[in-house]
Amino acid sequence: MGENNIVLKEDERIDDLQRCGLKIIQNTKKFCFGMDAVLLASFAKAKKGEVVLDLGTGTGIIPIIMQAKTEGSHFTGIDIQEESVEMANRSIIMNNQQGLVEVRHMDIKEVAKEFKAASFDVVTSNPPYMTQSHGLLNPDMPKAIARHEIMCDLEDVVSAADYVLRPNGRFYMVHRPFRLIEIITTLTQHKLEPKRIKFVYPYVDKEPNMVLIEAIKGAKRRVTVEEPLIVYREPGEYTKDIYEIYGY
Amino acid sequence: MGENNIVLKEDERIDDLQRCGLKIIQNTKKFCFGMDAVLLASFAKAKKGEVVLDLGTGTGIIPIIMQAKTEGSHFTGIDIQEESVEMANRSIIMNNQQGLVEVRHMDIKEVAKEFKAASFDVVTSNPPYMTQSHGLLNPDMPKAIARHEIMCDLEDVVSAADYVLRPNGRFYMVHRPFRLIEIITTLTQHKLEPKRIKFVYPYVDKEPNMVLIEAIKGAKRRVTVEEPLIVYREPGEYTKDIYEIYGY
Repeated sequence: MGENNIVLKEDERIDDLQRCGLKIIQNTKKFCFGMDAVLLASFAKAKKGEVVLDLGTGTGIIPIIMQAKTEGSHFTGIDIQEESVEMANRSIIMNNQQGLVEVRHMDIKEVAKEFKAASFDVVTSNPPYMTQSHGLLNPDMPKAIARHEIMCDLEDVVSAADYVLRPNGRFYMVHRPFRLIEIITTLTQHKLEPKRIKFVYPYVDKEPNMVLIEAIKGAKRRVTVEEPLIVYREPGEYTKDIYEIYGY
Repeated sequence: MGENNIVLKEDERIDDLQRCGLKIIQNTKKFCFGMDAVLLASFAKAKKGEVVLDLGTGTGIIPIIMQAKTEGSHFTGIDIQEESVEMANRSIIMNNQQGLVEVRHMDIKEVAKEFKAASFDVVTSNPPYMTQSHGLLNPDMPKAIARHEIMCDLEDVVSAADYVLRPNGRFYMVHRPFRLIEIITTLTQHKLEPKRIKFVYPYVDKEPNMVLIEAIKGAKRRVTVEEPLIVYREPGEYTKDIYEIYGY
């Protein structure tokens, strides 16, 4: 189905993902994905036949990209905001990903009611970064829910991942480096052992503003911190690594 | 006292630290410091009047450099290997640092018998990196003790730091990134909260091979991951950052 058949609502637009012909509906006033989600979709791996759950999927960007670029067999996204779920499902239809990607309206805290334990091979999440006490709350509620821990916090996200992942299942998350200690202690309390960590530095001489983590349920303790991912060579010009991830 | 008055033993040599006229005695077969120690001595801070303890001091490189470049008032190093303690004390005499730097023969596990609790403002350590199960044990015992957790492990080092540090005192450590999860969980169990982390990447496109950590006793949870430290611009040529740290 082409985009001509898709109905756009107020403030929505269709963006070309520049990858496999994928397109996505965004609402510039409410639900937009960032580079974070694109980097996570590239950092995360889904092997042949694996089933994947994305917690707090927003526009559906992560399952939509991962379905196209991995051999995973099915991708589910859940989000508490009904409006973004409805929008994500229109993106799925536009990309002919029905039956392969599904986005459901669900609270992360309800996953134990909706899914069986140990029923996923892989979980991904680009959760809200800020605690309620960090920074200003966004006065626009849909954006605030995506950015601040209003409807769920880190413990809720990690608990949900722990519940749905099979033994040796993999959890991929992108987050802010300033919360690294809390991330590591929360993951290890749930026996989700961090195995791969990658810091994303905006420039080669600046502090990282994102961290990508792979944790494996029940794995042995030993982590690989990967080569740095540097975003800009100079202002306005991406590095080769970023061009490759974006698939230009 | 100049180096002409210092007696060197077999396999020992005097190396110029290229900083404030400092020199250090090394034994190429037994006790040599690496870039790790020099980077830690630069990453660590000692403010005016502060007293500092270095755990597992080896050649004494860390207190010897920090005495010269900070305003700390007194620097103690301890090491379990008597031969390196004796060597470090000859370096101190050679540098005219008597009364300012002192290196004592002591087991890290005995600090509670030798020092009062909460009696230091700052603790530094470049401990053995490898567990007994990691890599090959060095057949040369002095080097093996410096590199492998034979005489003390990470828990012993962190316990000792915890014991001697005053509230809000600072602990600085250099270690290997593959042990990051264990480092963070061990520090937080002792309420030594990681506040500053810096990864050292040999090249801009390679995995980091060192991590520098500052933890503050009893601090609030929030960490800064700093800009990367990259060692080589190209093979054989250091980056500007490294030249600055080495003081050339």
